[in-house]
Amino acid sequence: MSQQTIDLNKLMTKKEFETCLRKIGETRYHNLHPFHKLLHEGKLNKGQVQAWALNRYYYQCSIPIKDSAVMSRMKEPDLRRIWRKRILDHDGESTGSGGIERWYKLTDGLGLDREYVKSTDGILSTTRFAVDAYVNFVKERSLLEAITSSLTELFAPSIHKERIAGMLENYDFINDEIMSYFKKRLTQAPDDAQYVLDYALENAQTRQEQEDVCNALIFKTQVLWSMLDALHFSYYEPGIIPPGAFVPKE
Amino acid sequence: MSQQTIDLNKLMTKKEFETCLRKIGETRYHNLHPFHKLLHEGKLNKGQVQAWALNRYYYQCSIPIKDSAVMSRMKEPDLRRIWRKRILDHDGESTGSGGIERWYKLTDGLGLDREYVKSTDGILSTTRFAVDAYVNFVKERSLLEAITSSLTELFAPSIHKERIAGMLENYDFINDEIMSYFKKRLTQAPDDAQYVLDYALENAQTRQEQEDVCNALIFKTQVLWSMLDALHFSYYEPGIIPPGAFVPKE
Repeated sequence: MSQQTIDLNKLMTKKEFETCLRKIGETRYHNLHPFHKLLHEGKLNKGQVQAWALNRYYYQCSIPIKDSAVMSRMKEPDLRRIWRKRILDHDGESTGSGGIERWYKLTDGLGLDREYVKSTDGILSTTRFAVDAYVNFVKERSLLEAITSSLTELFAPSIHKERIAGMLENYDFINDEIMSYFKKRLTQAPDDAQYVLDYALENAQTRQEQEDVCNALIFKTQVLWSMLDALHFSYYEPGIIPPGAFVPKE
Repeated sequence: MSQQTIDLNKLMTKKEFETCLRKIGETRYHNLHPFHKLLHEGKLNKGQVQAWALNRYYYQCSIPIKDSAVMSRMKEPDLRRIWRKRILDHDGESTGSGGIERWYKLTDGLGLDREYVKSTDGILSTTRFAVDAYVNFVKERSLLEAITSSLTELFAPSIHKERIAGMLENYDFINDEIMSYFKKRLTQAPDDAQYVLDYALENAQTRQEQEDVCNALIFKTQVLWSMLDALHFSYYEPGIIPPGAFVPKE
């Protein structure tokens, strides 16, 4: 959203504001990235899928850290109570449950050593910088921006559906068990996203705040896009792996 | 430096430690990145050189912010006095002088609008995330790590020499005036780098601290490498520019 062309005195209606947010998803969400198309259409080899799962793990394991940082800024118990569910979804009720654990089913299934995955030693620096930028964003920006940067979840269910169907169909090393993370997210993410959308529509009360929310969502799409740029560059085309990063065996 | 194979009780001699640091430069400094070779050998078009200068500007204008953050952590006036020179080098004695100003000579000479450059609106998100990671690193890590993350300057003079010669020879839109930033850095950087090397050799008094310094230098090489990965991916091969980023006219 370029500030030059916007009249900050002119509040958008809720409908206009929601349209604006959905438009950001339609033009910037990472389902548009060529690496995602390659992944879903079965155009990657096992090593390239491993690189994706390994790098994306850093995002997965940082999400409850990000959500804890968001929660640490909420003054209302009601709001924290809602947000706590997100941490529960990822960390589970006990050892061996939760979204991070389901991500290990994916990396295990792809033949990656779990300790190596956990260490995050082999991830691309760009992955680390992008994900850390997300964690820092929610610490440094307003609570409204911190909360609404998660609005990419509005667009997640369709990419997850596409991913589950595409990956099951196109890779012989992928099965239902391995894809359990995404199956679970099909029901978790929509509730979370609707809550945050309602929160945004309710709590962005000036045009500046509406713009801040749009920019928070744009920022988050950039985090996801940057991660795929790096995977595409390092493991697909031109395929130049930075010093120290994961080198697929196959 | 993988911690598994290191005996943390075994201090390196100063000579071994310096060799270790120089080895990191030899294997990880961004002069090894293919995008640098393309840049220096005249293999890029003007739009690609513009993209490089535009993105690198975000690094340049963040360096005095990074150095201010480092300086804010120094308890010794003597140390701050030394470090202050770095901020002076970039910001100059008065408006219109200093390293950032010399960077505008490059972007002006390349035909980029100065206000557009200053806005940083068109930079790649990966550039922003990498540079911000550097600023955050010096805030969050030990003072020893914050100071020694600048050790990449040990390897800068040779890349600057190569860049000046290569770019003057290979591009008809490059002249001496445009390259003044790099000419100046040929004399500024070696003093700074030698000071920090001596500081590292003197102040890393345990093997853990020596490893921390090595890892701070590795981190910094990753920042520079990540920036070139993104430029290469977006503007050279495959040449997929992310939504919202600078699109060259030519």
